[in-house]
Amino acid sequence: MASSIFTNNSLSLSLPAANNHNQKAIPRDFLVRLPKSAPLSSPCHLELKSSRLKVSATASPATPVMDQSSTKTTSAPPPTTVEVDLGTRSYPIYIGPGLLDQPDLLQRHVHGKKVLVVTNTTVAPLYLDKTISALTAGNPNVTVESVILPDGEKYKDMETLMKVFDKAIETRMDRKCTFVALGGGVIGDMCGYAAASYLRGVNFIQIPTTVMAQVDSSVGGKTGINHRLGKNLIGAFYQPQCVLIDTDTLNTLPDRELASGLAEVIKYGLIRDAEFFEWQEKNMQALLSRDPGAFAYAIKRSCENKAEVVSQDEKESGLRATLNLGHTFGHAIETGFGYGQWLHGEAVAAGTVMAVDMSYRLGWIDDSLVKRVHIILKQANLPTAPPETMTVEMFQSVMAVRGMNA
Amino acid sequence: MASSIFTNNSLSLSLPAANNHNQKAIPRDFLVRLPKSAPLSSPCHLELKSSRLKVSATASPATPVMDQSSTKTTSAPPPTTVEVDLGTRSYPIYIGPGLLDQPDLLQRHVHGKKVLVVTNTTVAPLYLDKTISALTAGNPNVTVESVILPDGEKYKDMETLMKVFDKAIETRMDRKCTFVALGGGVIGDMCGYAAASYLRGVNFIQIPTTVMAQVDSSVGGKTGINHRLGKNLIGAFYQPQCVLIDTDTLNTLPDRELASGLAEVIKYGLIRDAEFFEWQEKNMQALLSRDPGAFAYAIKRSCENKAEVVSQDEKESGLRATLNLGHTFGHAIETGFGYGQWLHGEAVAAGTVMAVDMSYRLGWIDDSLVKRVHIILKQANLPTAPPETMTVEMFQSVMAVRGMNA
Repeated sequence: MASSIFTNNSLSLSLPAANNHNQKAIPRDFLVRLPKSAPLSSPCHLELKSSRLKVSATASPATPVMDQSSTKTTSAPPPTTVEVDLGTRSYPIYIGPGLLDQPDLLQRHVHGKKVLVVTNTTVAPLYLDKTISALTAGNPNVTVESVILPDGEKYKDMETLMKVFDKAIETRMDRKCTFVALGGGVIGDMCGYAAASYLRGVNFIQIPTTVMAQVDSSVGGKTGINHRLGKNLIGAFYQPQCVLIDTDTLNTLPDRELASGLAEVIKYGLIRDAEFFEWQEKNMQALLSRDPGAFAYAIKRSCENKAEVVSQDEKESGLRATLNLGHTFGHAIETGFGYGQWLHGEAVAAGTVMAVDMSYRLGWIDDSLVKRVHIILKQANLPTAPPETMTVEMFQSVMAVRGMNA
Repeated sequence: MASSIFTNNSLSLSLPAANNHNQKAIPRDFLVRLPKSAPLSSPCHLELKSSRLKVSATASPATPVMDQSSTKTTSAPPPTTVEVDLGTRSYPIYIGPGLLDQPDLLQRHVHGKKVLVVTNTTVAPLYLDKTISALTAGNPNVTVESVILPDGEKYKDMETLMKVFDKAIETRMDRKCTFVALGGGVIGDMCGYAAASYLRGVNFIQIPTTVMAQVDSSVGGKTGINHRLGKNLIGAFYQPQCVLIDTDTLNTLPDRELASGLAEVIKYGLIRDAEFFEWQEKNMQALLSRDPGAFAYAIKRSCENKAEVVSQDEKESGLRATLNLGHTFGHAIETGFGYGQWLHGEAVAAGTVMAVDMSYRLGWIDDSLVKRVHIILKQANLPTAPPETMTVEMFQSVMAVRGMNA
C-alpha cells in the first residue's frame, strides 16, 4: 500500500452560512485528515509496484496483428509500459519520446479495418498526419477517417458529441472499428464516451497530448460529457485498448496547459505518494522547463499511482474517490465560473487549497502541510484561491448538484 | 438446445440490381436455411428449461428491503418468474396479472431513496399513478419523480433523451437512484440508455406495457436511441434490476400495437422453438381476442426463449444475432419510410416475409414453410409485404448503414 501525506477520509463539513438543504447534499469525500502516525516520507512507497501493478522497461512482447516488417524502426527505444490491471479489460500505457514514430505500438491494438480519429482544431494541424501515418504505415488495409472538433471544455457537450456519431455513421464505421482520441482530456472523454455508445460499444485508443490527459484523464476509463448544470454528469466507464503517451507532444503545449496538468501530478503526491511529493518539491523547476527526464518520470509515476487505484476500484465505490481531491471545489469553479474560463487543473489547484484549508480548520492537518501545498502550487504557476467573483452561495449551489456524482 | 423450424446461418446474398458497394456492406446474418434433418416439431424443446434457464411458478423468496407490512396483498397470486442468467448481473422477469398491485415486487429492487419514472403521454394517464403507488406504498422514505416524454418511435432521439437527463439533474437524482421505464419499447430503450449514462450508470427497472416490450425489448439489456440515418445506432448494453410484466396493462393496448408485438412472438417460434410456433398456429385467434391464459403463456415462452439466448450471448457476438430475423429488412422499412409510419412489429413482419422469401429463392427452405409464415402473419393482422413506395435502392441504402450494426 502506498503512503500518503495525509489520509483522505469521509466527513461532513459545515461551510459558513450553509443552509441545511445544500449542506446535506454536499459530497463528503474530498477532505483530508492527517493520521497521527503518518510519516511524510514512508518506505511503504517502495511496495507500491509489487502488488497488482506491473511496470516494465521493455516493449510489450505481444505479437503485432499485421506485418510491420516495412515499418519497424529498429533504432527506436522500447517504451516504458505501465499495465492497468482490470482482468480481461487490462491494457498497457506506453510512455516515451517518439512513440508516434513506432507504428507497431498502435497497430497491434487495431483489429478491424476502419479507424476514426477524433481530435480538435488545435491538435489536428500538429499531430493528425503523424497519427494517420502511424496507423497506416505498412498497413494498407486500414482506412482512417477523422473528425475535428472545436477546442475547449465548453464544447464537451452533447451537440459536439453528435458530430462524432454523424461522422462515424457517414463513414460507415462498423462494430470492429477503432476510435482514436488524439488530444487532451476533453477529446479523450468525448471520444471514449462516443466509443462506448456507438453501436453499443466499439474499440478505442487514447493518444493524450497534454500533461493533464497523460497523467490523469486518459487512464482509468472515465468518459463522458458535461451538462449545463454540472461536469461529467453523462458518460460511461469504458476502458481503452491502450494509452499511447508520446512525450514529444508536450513540446508544443502552451505553458498554461502544462501547469494545469501539474495540478494532477501534485495530487498523486498528496493523496498517496509522499516520496513523489518530495521529489516534486525538489524538481518543479525541471518540470516547468520541460526537462524530458523529469517529465518522463513524473508521467510514469502518476500513471502508476492512477493505475493502482483504478485496478482496485474501477467504478469508484470507495478508494477511487480519493482521486477527486480538489475536484469538488474545482468542478464548482469550472461550472459556476463558466466552462473554459479556468483550465481544469487551475480549478483543481484552487480546489485543493480549499480542501486543505478546510482540513486544517477542522484540525486534521497542521499548518506546515498547508504551507507546503501553497508553495508547490505557486511554484507550478497555479492559482491558490478561487476566482474573486465566486461566492459561497455559488459554491453551495453547484456542489449540491455535483454531490450526485463524486 | 432448442429446436428451430429452420436454422439461421450467416450467408451473403445478391439482391436484384445490387451494386457492389452496397452488396458488400449488407449484413449476412438475417437469412434462414432449412437443415435437411430439421423436424418441424422436436422433443428438444422440452430440454430448453433444463440448462441455464430457471423457471419458477412461485414468487422469489428475496427479502424486501423495506417493511411492506401495511401494503401486503395477501391474496395476490405469486407471479411467474423467468430468470435471466448473467452472472452477477442476473435478474428476474416477473409475469402475471395485477403485479402493479404488489408493491413488494418493485420495492425489493429499489435500493436508494430516489426514483425517476420515465414514461410517455399515452401511458402516463393510464399507469403512472399506479406505478408511483406501488413504489411508495408503505415506503415513505422514497421520493418518486417522473418525466413524461412524447409518444412514438420518432421521438427516440438525442433531443428527447436530454429531457430525461435534465429532469434527473434538476430533481437531484444521485448515484444510488433508480430509473423506472414505464411504457413500450421506445421508453424502455431510452430509459435504459439514460440509466446507463447518467452519472456513468444508475439502477433501472423495466415495466413494459406493450406486447412488443414484454416479449422482446425489455429483456436482454439492449438500450439506445435512433440516429436519423439508422435505428439504435447509439446505445449501450445495460441490464435492468428486474422486469415487471403486469399483463393487465394489455387491456388498454390498441389492436394494432398488440398485433405488432405478435411479430416478435412469431419470431421466437421461427428461429428456435418449433413447438411454440405450432402452438401459435393453433392459438392465434385466442391471442387476438386477448385471452389472458393464452397471453400469459405466449409472454412466458417468449421471455424464456429470449432469456436463454441472451444468457449465452449477451453482447451479440453470434447466437444473439438470430433474434434479428426480419429486423434487417424491417429496420430498413422503418428508417427508409420514416420512423413511426409503420410500427416496429409491422416492419419486422414484412421483413420476416422478405427474409423467408429470400431463403426460399436460395433453395434453403421449401415453399410449405413460406406459406405457413405468410398464413400466420396474416392471421395476426400483420403486413406480409413492404410499403409499395420502398424501392430496392432504398433498401440497399439503409441496409448498408444497418450493416454496421446487426
